[in-house]
Amino acid sequence: MPVVKTSQSQAGDPAEVVKILVASDIHVGFSERDPVRFNDSVNTFEEVLKLAQAQNVDMVLFGGDLYHENRPSREAEHRVMRLLRKYCLSDKAVPLQFISDPSVNFHHSLFPRVNYEDPNLNVGMPVFTIHGNHDDLAGKGLSAVDLLHESGLLNLFGKFTDIEKFEVSPILLKKGNTRIALYGISSQRDDRLFRAFHKEEIKFLRPKEDSESWFNILVLHQNRPRRSEARNSGACVPDRFIPQFFDLCIWGHEHECKIEPQYYDSPDIVGNGIFMMQPGSTIATSLSPEEAGEKKVAVLSILQRKFQSSPIALRTVRQFFFDELTIDEGSAGRDLPKEKRRAKESDEELAAEKVREMIALASRERHSDQPKLPLIRLRITYSGQWINVAPFNVQRFGQQFVNAVANPRDLIIFKKQRAKMVKGTVDKESLADAAKRRNRELQVTVEDIVKDYFRSVDNKDDKLMVLGEAMLGKAVADFVAKDVDSVIVDTIKEQLKKAREYIVSKPLKVSSVPSFDENGEPEEDSGQELEILENLAEMRDCRLEAVKSKTSQADVGLTM
Amino acid sequence: MPVVKTSQSQAGDPAEVVKILVASDIHVGFSERDPVRFNDSVNTFEEVLKLAQAQNVDMVLFGGDLYHENRPSREAEHRVMRLLRKYCLSDKAVPLQFISDPSVNFHHSLFPRVNYEDPNLNVGMPVFTIHGNHDDLAGKGLSAVDLLHESGLLNLFGKFTDIEKFEVSPILLKKGNTRIALYGISSQRDDRLFRAFHKEEIKFLRPKEDSESWFNILVLHQNRPRRSEARNSGACVPDRFIPQFFDLCIWGHEHECKIEPQYYDSPDIVGNGIFMMQPGSTIATSLSPEEAGEKKVAVLSILQRKFQSSPIALRTVRQFFFDELTIDEGSAGRDLPKEKRRAKESDEELAAEKVREMIALASRERHSDQPKLPLIRLRITYSGQWINVAPFNVQRFGQQFVNAVANPRDLIIFKKQRAKMVKGTVDKESLADAAKRRNRELQVTVEDIVKDYFRSVDNKDDKLMVLGEAMLGKAVADFVAKDVDSVIVDTIKEQLKKAREYIVSKPLKVSSVPSFDENGEPEEDSGQELEILENLAEMRDCRLEAVKSKTSQADVGLTM
Repeated sequence: MPVVKTSQSQAGDPAEVVKILVASDIHVGFSERDPVRFNDSVNTFEEVLKLAQAQNVDMVLFGGDLYHENRPSREAEHRVMRLLRKYCLSDKAVPLQFISDPSVNFHHSLFPRVNYEDPNLNVGMPVFTIHGNHDDLAGKGLSAVDLLHESGLLNLFGKFTDIEKFEVSPILLKKGNTRIALYGISSQRDDRLFRAFHKEEIKFLRPKEDSESWFNILVLHQNRPRRSEARNSGACVPDRFIPQFFDLCIWGHEHECKIEPQYYDSPDIVGNGIFMMQPGSTIATSLSPEEAGEKKVAVLSILQRKFQSSPIALRTVRQFFFDELTIDEGSAGRDLPKEKRRAKESDEELAAEKVREMIALASRERHSDQPKLPLIRLRITYSGQWINVAPFNVQRFGQQFVNAVANPRDLIIFKKQRAKMVKGTVDKESLADAAKRRNRELQVTVEDIVKDYFRSVDNKDDKLMVLGEAMLGKAVADFVAKDVDSVIVDTIKEQLKKAREYIVSKPLKVSSVPSFDENGEPEEDSGQELEILENLAEMRDCRLEAVKSKTSQADVGLTM
Repeated sequence: MPVVKTSQSQAGDPAEVVKILVASDIHVGFSERDPVRFNDSVNTFEEVLKLAQAQNVDMVLFGGDLYHENRPSREAEHRVMRLLRKYCLSDKAVPLQFISDPSVNFHHSLFPRVNYEDPNLNVGMPVFTIHGNHDDLAGKGLSAVDLLHESGLLNLFGKFTDIEKFEVSPILLKKGNTRIALYGISSQRDDRLFRAFHKEEIKFLRPKEDSESWFNILVLHQNRPRRSEARNSGACVPDRFIPQFFDLCIWGHEHECKIEPQYYDSPDIVGNGIFMMQPGSTIATSLSPEEAGEKKVAVLSILQRKFQSSPIALRTVRQFFFDELTIDEGSAGRDLPKEKRRAKESDEELAAEKVREMIALASRERHSDQPKLPLIRLRITYSGQWINVAPFNVQRFGQQFVNAVANPRDLIIFKKQRAKMVKGTVDKESLADAAKRRNRELQVTVEDIVKDYFRSVDNKDDKLMVLGEAMLGKAVADFVAKDVDSVIVDTIKEQLKKAREYIVSKPLKVSSVPSFDENGEPEEDSGQELEILENLAEMRDCRLEAVKSKTSQADVGLTM
């Protein structure tokens, strides 16, 4: 018997209403080496827990990616443990009866119980999470979130390793007459999960008794819109795959905040559709327009099969403004820069003015809990006669905003306007191109930074790279014995310094060693010098900034 | 008023006697990639906790190095958390009054209380530890043990970062009329701690009231005997530095089990000396004679200023037998091997016989809780005419014992007998040499393995190493994004495979690229080929085995 679902407001006996704070993609550790933003992710994580406490929720539900890195820094793990212990442990009673078999729900753990039913832990506010792609199992079967589960600080559910064919067994919770069946599927490769849904190889187990009285929630951590034109699956899990018996589906992984539940009616039975909720991340990890909106969490109030969702805007999230600027004859005039740019060319002036406006806007809108310096991203499109002008240097441009924005190194990305196509001729090809361009814009990685580094070394003699066996041996030894992040880098720096001093003192060219292109294939011109990789440490530290500025250059490269 | 201290047996009112299980250097994670020994360290850690539970102790005290690696694997951390939660959390009351200021003792933590006084945790058996050199702070201020403290699973004390001048504030515990002042100094650089003691820059704070009624314990994690002839400090902290007001000093870091308290009388007041206790490690991390003895923990029973120590042999520790064999004309005859060894030369036959005897001995002595395969180490000394014979191949030798010992790859180390010096002429020089040799014997590292790998590649054309920018970029990107251990290695393998295929198809010699010796200095002969590092993954996996066999070769190299 189908039940009409609604997200309309409702009052209810507090003894019957289950209150759940929902958030996702908290990414603790993101930007932790950035001199300005290092505390952002932790601060907002604390805000989320404080909110949950203030809202007096019965439980907290995360959609994955609690940590930003698969192997979080010790600091990130330390902060997370500290905050979970601080906010989740208390004398408060948890009014949720746990009525499924915890040894099935938490099959991965030695402790067959939900943490708030452990007699040795006073859990007042239980946290439940699936693991995301950032805290995935890395082939060893254990994520960083498993440690939190095993220490009793949270409850990790929906953990699957074999996903070719599998059963999802829900956590069953009861409060008064409200019954919740909570299903989770931890982050999986999109293609494989697509296939599993498509071939109906996933079986969702359902309570036998009163099966229509349960409020069914599914938590996923996958791509939601189509992300690939090349693959049949689109490298995503489409909404339509979600079985109709679910009342609410919570999508982790997608960072854009679409936290207001959207209703998708059933194709078969009117009123038997599903509410989709995409909480979005609690921190902007890329400076794309999708991340520029307000970041939110939501408090669900569930009474039997009805629910209400109240979004709450987060107050500690750093402001992020995204805007666009077109440079053409109309805006910047016809006095185009020559090959060697002068100071204060008109495009650079226009950009600076626009950035100042955005900073002023941020300043007006900022409230007391927000960090002082905003994130600003301006996308500049060269058009008309300006299309062939080499863009200005974004790093140098950013220096004037060092104490005014959080990201002076990557304020600007560039785009060049293609000649417009005749309407109606937009074909698959160009869509794919656009997708590629967009991917490239978002996903430029450290590879590009390394590449850029090599290109940017001025002195040709400095560009020799010799990794001798002794150096490599020492690096590996230290890598094994000590802390990875710094040691490899330090050893390489130290040893290469010696190598470089020697080489610089006796400049020489090696003419017969091949070099390799980005696919690892030998390049045609194999008469290139070997190159020194010297300041890997520095590069790693400014990774995030550089990724952004690289983005712009790659973008230009692709769209021309 | 000095009080006579004794370690004699004593009865006492259980309400007055403080029972402490003492252990050290548990090294969880040691050998975790070894196909036979991977679980050894965790098994013994569990045994220690079980023993503590069975002995019904009031607390457990570790001398540091709970983890083997500074950055333990996720598996190691997971197991430690799981076991601490399993054994330490319970309803049992802890009868120790904590009367010092926990915000001083645990200044590094957000939670200013000992874990068993946290109202949200039921700790029935508190663990206290300092951190050792293996779980040191790695320059970032946080060790892996800090995570355990912050989650409430144990109590980390004695944490110091600035040790130029510092105050050690004790944990004060009381049970009936027994009062214990527990001082800890986490692992420090030996030279610096030596200097701090020597210059009296360490101040030990003492309770003002009834200062003579406290049983004073110091826990250290340092070199105890002299380890360097070159440095004034000897790179150690000598026993004589320990202030006389201490009743008992517990030395972590030294792996040899000397757990019976040894009494060092006071030079000033008879009976006012100190008991020194060196628990030793709970697992043999090197196959040296010092680690061959039984591994033990002890239960201290303290009644006011008197104490008794009961050592308990651990039953899960893998057997380890060390023996010596001299090869000379007397034992192995005068039929010396030629340059190309035949099968069954007499030295190899004698060694095999000896190893079989040792295995038989192990088999007779093994009890049910011990792992089946023993560790065997035979040190062979070539003497007389045999001194110039090239030793047999230890890896090949070991193959016949693959299912009979846990360490078939490094059963044997070689030593060559120097010509004996005339008695009385042993000078400082030769002592230093001996020390160096011994160090080398123990400390051969992954560097040597890498070096050895390069030497062992047969095909000269395979030995080219080209690390192009694209490869390096990809490796670094994956390093940042994913799990470090496997990804770098996989990427390097993949990319270098391409490079190698290209190079092998067009063999070429590079004649003007310098190579570097083990100090990173350019070698005289710079006409060496660049070399391919291809199977780093394999090398890392067999690291431990290889280290041992390298040891023997390095030893030969040094003593000839």
